[in-house]
Amino acid sequence: MSKPKGFEIPVGVRDYLPRAVSKLRAIELNVLECMERWGYRQIMTPTMEYYDTVGVASSTSDRKLFKLLNNRGTTLVLRSDMTAPIARVVSSLLKEEEVPLRLSYHANVFRAIEEEAGREAEFFQTGVELVGDDSPEADAEVVALAIASLQAAGVTSFKIAMGHVGFLNGLFEEIIPGRQAEQQALKELLLSRDVVGYRTAIEALGLAPEHRDKLEAILRLRGGKEICDQATRLSVEQQTIQSIAHLCEVWEVLEAYGVSEHVLIDLTMIGDFSYYTGMTFEGYAAEIGFPVCNGGRYDNLLQQFGRSVPATGFALKTNRIVDGVDGIQMETKLPILIRYDEQGRQEALSAAAELRATGLTVVTGLTEGPEDRRREQQGLYAEVYSYTAEGRQPVQRRELP
Amino acid sequence: MSKPKGFEIPVGVRDYLPRAVSKLRAIELNVLECMERWGYRQIMTPTMEYYDTVGVASSTSDRKLFKLLNNRGTTLVLRSDMTAPIARVVSSLLKEEEVPLRLSYHANVFRAIEEEAGREAEFFQTGVELVGDDSPEADAEVVALAIASLQAAGVTSFKIAMGHVGFLNGLFEEIIPGRQAEQQALKELLLSRDVVGYRTAIEALGLAPEHRDKLEAILRLRGGKEICDQATRLSVEQQTIQSIAHLCEVWEVLEAYGVSEHVLIDLTMIGDFSYYTGMTFEGYAAEIGFPVCNGGRYDNLLQQFGRSVPATGFALKTNRIVDGVDGIQMETKLPILIRYDEQGRQEALSAAAELRATGLTVVTGLTEGPEDRRREQQGLYAEVYSYTAEGRQPVQRRELP
Repeated sequence: MSKPKGFEIPVGVRDYLPRAVSKLRAIELNVLECMERWGYRQIMTPTMEYYDTVGVASSTSDRKLFKLLNNRGTTLVLRSDMTAPIARVVSSLLKEEEVPLRLSYHANVFRAIEEEAGREAEFFQTGVELVGDDSPEADAEVVALAIASLQAAGVTSFKIAMGHVGFLNGLFEEIIPGRQAEQQALKELLLSRDVVGYRTAIEALGLAPEHRDKLEAILRLRGGKEICDQATRLSVEQQTIQSIAHLCEVWEVLEAYGVSEHVLIDLTMIGDFSYYTGMTFEGYAAEIGFPVCNGGRYDNLLQQFGRSVPATGFALKTNRIVDGVDGIQMETKLPILIRYDEQGRQEALSAAAELRATGLTVVTGLTEGPEDRRREQQGLYAEVYSYTAEGRQPVQRRELP
Repeated sequence: MSKPKGFEIPVGVRDYLPRAVSKLRAIELNVLECMERWGYRQIMTPTMEYYDTVGVASSTSDRKLFKLLNNRGTTLVLRSDMTAPIARVVSSLLKEEEVPLRLSYHANVFRAIEEEAGREAEFFQTGVELVGDDSPEADAEVVALAIASLQAAGVTSFKIAMGHVGFLNGLFEEIIPGRQAEQQALKELLLSRDVVGYRTAIEALGLAPEHRDKLEAILRLRGGKEICDQATRLSVEQQTIQSIAHLCEVWEVLEAYGVSEHVLIDLTMIGDFSYYTGMTFEGYAAEIGFPVCNGGRYDNLLQQFGRSVPATGFALKTNRIVDGVDGIQMETKLPILIRYDEQGRQEALSAAAELRATGLTVVTGLTEGPEDRRREQQGLYAEVYSYTAEGRQPVQRRELP
């Protein structure tokens, strides 16, 4: 074995020390348990998939996929999200299971190019997919579950911004029909929340003032249920009208769930996944500058795998919650130290086993080294016991419980 | 998006449906909790590491590493075990922490060539590393914890076979000094448990009968503490004597733990990791044809990362336990179904929230479809309730709890 070059790890990935693992694990388990109570059953898929199946179907652009060759020369990808793998499983192993199917996951996903911008190349997502139900009820269920999941993760102050892909598609097609490049450019400006750029771009289109005003008015379409009424007046295009009607119904169901206080309608919100076909949403936490979850409806993805059923879902950006939220209080469970010599060994190890059986954490060791005294002085042990041969009686520095 | 070619997944990887995930998760959490009670704190490391650090230091042969290039053209590997990454962390992020350090992990690892033999290319390991203690006490602790971990995983009937790398190295050096190629060939025959091949090979060495008999006698060195005495008489070589003495002491500590009934000394057991330097062990379960755990001492690995401390540890082969062991009984928790119409929606969703808050699993939906009736008839719901507008009173098909 030659000597490794150092301790470096690749850009965009990270180690989790015990304290961070405790927090990540607590969030993971709390959220998965919440999802289970809503009837979502957990599945796991491989880290590596074929480029020609999941790689191609994923919404991640080609240059953001981590690719590798297997020993047969076939291109594999590291999964970039869980939505495409779950669509594959629903269309193959779960093909015979009737819809609606409720599935959950907690998984690490990979994005190659993110490292350039100081973003993570490997990160965790915890999410659900609700397959086979195209009703506003289903969209509301995943939004309400996203809210419950954020609460289970310890996020206390947050908002869900909810939009609809069809609203902008319909409105743009009504006002600048057939001009795909311009429509796409406007969407990208909205996606990157570049308001100044968007205003400049609509000025440059050379539209009649009433049309320009409509495109400009979109920027103000953020708020509660009243936004639905305002948006309905903007357009006579059928897709736009239907999209707004769908969002109104989702809102009503969210009111029945009693969670609409956490939601605002934002018709500039189009979601950054190419497979979204309907309602989309993003969650923002007060403490964190980035979205903490995103989701939406993708009714065309599964038919690529041969099972033509609608679907909707979301994923928490679990790492961001771990880094940004103090909501989950981690207990620091200090270990008990039991020291012994050869004569006291058997009694010491029996005592350790008994204490562990009650759920306590116990560290054992033969002799007492200087590092133990330092650790003890630093308060790193809850208790310290000693079992040695003093007249063949175990000497305990403190009373055993 | 072009159409994916099918549902295939790469050879050697797999999907886990909900029932398998429940079992894997239960084993994972039980074992990690057991390790925590022994004072082991969990860490996580990236899936991808630099080839020049962890790839080179790992015991996995180069052709078994999954390699990929990042967008800077640097070679990365998918981790093939957790021992080398933990050695890296102990030597960098945890450099200031005094030994002994007790660390645990549950991680998926990757082996490229395994898929050829129908073995898994991605699988789970749950294990520990005890860093900074070279005593027989430390080796016994990881063996005893391996036993406790197998029990926590639901494995009831198993044996740990324990050997020592130094015993065979010393004996071979005494009997066929300097003949490295022949020594290596004999070790590989023992590693693959090819007894016939081993006997043929020692015949072919053309040794004096008493020397040949000693090499032959190794094959019978399997048993309890009496094996130590027998082995001591085989050799006068210092490394051999010291190795046996170390194993004897480990055995004594295991007796103090009260677990020696699960252990047998097997001096043909050398472990398949090139970094092992002392005691090695493997666990065999009655139900399973492959080892379910392996471990050993590796005192030279950490100095490759610049921190010269001894270490010992083990990993459970978690997948094999999931596939082969029935010990963990999974509860099948059926969901409650709550159906409603628009008038009953708010009451239905409130009822669902209340039931979930008590820990029950509840699925809700607007209308009752034929698949619900089928599922109900198949016994897939624990209870079914209905909230509809019949004179504005909710009609419940069964009594609510």
